[in-house]
Amino acid sequence: MKTIGALLFPDFELLDLFGPLEMFGLLPDHFDLTLIAETTGPVPSNQKVAAHAEVTLADAPSFDILLIPGGSGTRAEKDNPPLLDWLRGASERADLTLSVCTGSILLALAGLLDGRRATTNKLAFARLTPAYPKVHWQAQARWVEDGPIWTSSGVSAGMDMSLAVIAHLHGAQTAERVASWAEYTWHRDAAHDPFAATHGLD
Amino acid sequence: MKTIGALLFPDFELLDLFGPLEMFGLLPDHFDLTLIAETTGPVPSNQKVAAHAEVTLADAPSFDILLIPGGSGTRAEKDNPPLLDWLRGASERADLTLSVCTGSILLALAGLLDGRRATTNKLAFARLTPAYPKVHWQAQARWVEDGPIWTSSGVSAGMDMSLAVIAHLHGAQTAERVASWAEYTWHRDAAHDPFAATHGLD
Repeated sequence: MKTIGALLFPDFELLDLFGPLEMFGLLPDHFDLTLIAETTGPVPSNQKVAAHAEVTLADAPSFDILLIPGGSGTRAEKDNPPLLDWLRGASERADLTLSVCTGSILLALAGLLDGRRATTNKLAFARLTPAYPKVHWQAQARWVEDGPIWTSSGVSAGMDMSLAVIAHLHGAQTAERVASWAEYTWHRDAAHDPFAATHGLD
Repeated sequence: MKTIGALLFPDFELLDLFGPLEMFGLLPDHFDLTLIAETTGPVPSNQKVAAHAEVTLADAPSFDILLIPGGSGTRAEKDNPPLLDWLRGASERADLTLSVCTGSILLALAGLLDGRRATTNKLAFARLTPAYPKVHWQAQARWVEDGPIWTSSGVSAGMDMSLAVIAHLHGAQTAERVASWAEYTWHRDAAHDPFAATHGLD
């Protein structure tokens, strides 16, 4: 059983968080999910509707896997040293750190991507990535695995990456079964990124 | 601007709810989202993590669009007349009622699908549908539109249906733009259902 700590902050992107948690949550014998935030209680998403944080960052235990969503709220968290400090420590204690969309910008700000390959949201790629020159940003990638840190492209790409993490930990057949339960057509090639071209990155 | 009321109940399926709300929520000038439940506060999903209900069914206003997720929790709601009564009334007042996965079983229980074409989760299709013989169940369908009631197949199919609803209301280009923002490959053919065969319904 691996514990997953999923980070909430105001204006997180809904599907960045709940797409991956759907996939991991379909294997309750393998993964135990917890929503964490600076304060417990409701945290509004970029789509306004709120998720409920159970544990504060200060009280959170170590997790085996961290899940960091993106969203318009990442802009405010850039200037939030306590959150970035927590992220740095929690990632060092975790086996795997996963980000979706602009969640990778929070990892970059925490210094966790220095010298690593990573990706992010494709619409924002050209605007955001030059500020972090120590990161080997990959423009064409559905997701990027670099040791313990996996980063995905925008929003829906988080589901494809999560199924790849499940395959990595429990085999491709288990990931295929989860995709089938969710009636999801898994895009399993990390290098196939149709949205790089859509957003002018080819 | 259309209001969307999205129903929460204990053990709702995460992506049934948040996949559609991601898509509608990317158009905040067109759609205003509210989470509703029998009581306000946290409502745990089938994946354990909780969403936060803002308004009770008793206090909820009328909505232009209703979104009804499925999940293991639908079994308990079968024996919950107040919820089914609310659903019947709210659907009659709404322009559109959308269900995802086994959310259609709640619509069937409320009598809203009698004489209509509808679909549901494919893994559970053969087991669940015979109890509702007045419904014209469609085994091979990613989603089904019948007048004001749209029902989708399991979990991920809700995103495809929601993009089709956006196309219906605001044109295909707007739906394509939303899919591109979410880096989602929209499966736009309602009749193409690869999971009917996977689950022995072909």
